[in-house]
Amino acid sequence: MTSSSVPRTIEWVGGLDGHVALIDQTLLPAELSILQINDVAVLWEAIRTLRVRGAPAIGIAAAMGVVLGVRNHLGADRAGFDTQLRDTCDYLASSRPTAVNLTWALRRMSELAASLADRPLDDVKAALLDEARTIRDEDAAMCRAIGEMGQQLIPDGGSVLTHCNAGGLATAEYGTALAPMYAAHKRGRPFRVYADETRPLLQGARLTAWELQRAGVDVTLICDNMAGALMQADKIDLVITGADRIAANGDVANKIGTYSVAVLAHAHGIPFYVAAPSSTFDLTLSNGSEIPIETRDPDEIRRGFGRLTAPADVPCETRAFDVTPARLVRAIITERALIEPVSVQTIAAALAATP
Amino acid sequence: MTSSSVPRTIEWVGGLDGHVALIDQTLLPAELSILQINDVAVLWEAIRTLRVRGAPAIGIAAAMGVVLGVRNHLGADRAGFDTQLRDTCDYLASSRPTAVNLTWALRRMSELAASLADRPLDDVKAALLDEARTIRDEDAAMCRAIGEMGQQLIPDGGSVLTHCNAGGLATAEYGTALAPMYAAHKRGRPFRVYADETRPLLQGARLTAWELQRAGVDVTLICDNMAGALMQADKIDLVITGADRIAANGDVANKIGTYSVAVLAHAHGIPFYVAAPSSTFDLTLSNGSEIPIETRDPDEIRRGFGRLTAPADVPCETRAFDVTPARLVRAIITERALIEPVSVQTIAAALAATP
Repeated sequence: MTSSSVPRTIEWVGGLDGHVALIDQTLLPAELSILQINDVAVLWEAIRTLRVRGAPAIGIAAAMGVVLGVRNHLGADRAGFDTQLRDTCDYLASSRPTAVNLTWALRRMSELAASLADRPLDDVKAALLDEARTIRDEDAAMCRAIGEMGQQLIPDGGSVLTHCNAGGLATAEYGTALAPMYAAHKRGRPFRVYADETRPLLQGARLTAWELQRAGVDVTLICDNMAGALMQADKIDLVITGADRIAANGDVANKIGTYSVAVLAHAHGIPFYVAAPSSTFDLTLSNGSEIPIETRDPDEIRRGFGRLTAPADVPCETRAFDVTPARLVRAIITERALIEPVSVQTIAAALAATP
Repeated sequence: MTSSSVPRTIEWVGGLDGHVALIDQTLLPAELSILQINDVAVLWEAIRTLRVRGAPAIGIAAAMGVVLGVRNHLGADRAGFDTQLRDTCDYLASSRPTAVNLTWALRRMSELAASLADRPLDDVKAALLDEARTIRDEDAAMCRAIGEMGQQLIPDGGSVLTHCNAGGLATAEYGTALAPMYAAHKRGRPFRVYADETRPLLQGARLTAWELQRAGVDVTLICDNMAGALMQADKIDLVITGADRIAANGDVANKIGTYSVAVLAHAHGIPFYVAAPSSTFDLTLSNGSEIPIETRDPDEIRRGFGRLTAPADVPCETRAFDVTPARLVRAIITERALIEPVSVQTIAAALAATP
């Protein structure tokens, strides 16, 4: 993926009086529209309604949201500034519950501000903007490193299945699950990708298929319920997905349907990999049962794309994420290491190592 | 399900100059529209485009299509009549390839005509209409028997998962997979149904949820990719699906996604049942690898909701059915017997028994 083939998912444009520019992913693939956001409430809505989505990208968005939320604080009253900062962080944290990157980024921004307790507020604001941009740049670098680490797992001529979109659009660039595919493609290595369409919001159809096709990767779109039949027909060599949060023991929260794919892969002897930066681990949670799982509007299922395709009032199961137990995950691909096997010990060791 | 709660899926109205009346299932759940069909080409299109669908229902439709195709044959030339009958059967057989009930019904109609070789053609035509109506009535009776046979498998307070629509709309009445649910409901027994929405054509959302809700059954709609997470959460006690064709060894062809559900059920120790009338067995096929699998238009995936939700030219996997191996099927519920375990021997014995 070159910068010309996929525009930047999210970036800050200009100085402290600038704005957040992000691709409105709800309009893809029909329309490539860049939103200019100057207001934290608009950014909150963009995260909530998935205009920007993907665990790393919403971390970046949240960091930039902090800047939007505090840059216009008037006066030199530090206590007042800190209150506004805290309110902004609490507000942004309420936008979506499952991805840990969101709270991780907010905490990082808060800690930076706290470390600059005796500095003029203009300097603090400038430092917060720098930090948000750094989070973005670090994410792009992490994705590149994940790509290098993971591309070796894709055999020449092999087929990779992925679920949802953990691609360039879910991160600053390159993606997590898709980064190994971009890295393999850049080397000119032949392989094929099957993309689960990923109901209800079709991130696989709308985003993964779109960005891989645009980058020239051989991609075939499938309905979520076809993965088993493809595995049965020996058409899948490995699975790579992203993650929204990973507990200390390696249990992985990711888009609903990931668990089904992991069980199917296990039943067919196909390795199931998770690609995620270190910031996706939440070592405060001993296992996946402690991860909060977002539920969403049943009309995302009943009226998926502007048309009623079910009885208007039929109850729906609306959990947006599921948890794949560590025992089904062959390895976790991070920017630092390939964590294999997946256990409390190997995770702790990988995260403790100096980056 | 009473006759007032769900209209008849397909029936012949009037005498030999009458018509086929069928619910246009492509318009559900938004609109309940009954098509009146007088012409075999219109019926072919209705089968092809799934206005009428479900293995038993398209068998009935095909039988009625034979009547439409030959009733206007002029003259008393038996050879000419037989040619027209054969052409009509070949034409109807080309509408969809996977469901064996289609060819089964056509063969039954042809054999009846052959058995009346020395009768006046008006008598033959009248006998063919009687036979088509008999096929319909027998199907309704078979579904009732499947319901009685299968309802005992649903524990009080339990939860059943089903995939696609093998309900009243897929048959003359009652359905196959849904028949045990209707029978349990009729007895006032408490249970819950989870209905896979069943991409790409959403028969679970549009049809199963609609007919179960209409009949007062407690039904919750889920995306196909949620089944694993529900099983993981101990929310599914058993799975019942229909079948489009069952080979002699018990391998089951059914709507794409059925195999994934069967593997998931097996991995969670949940019994997976198939409900189907005897006419769904194709003993000429030793195993499922010989069953022809229909592929369909990729735009059913790319534009499934009336709107482009994927790159317009992205390749798609389009197989409409998959094959679940007999080893994953706990039992097959037929109108004659509960076939358990599933094997060449138990199937042969059940089908050989006098009905």
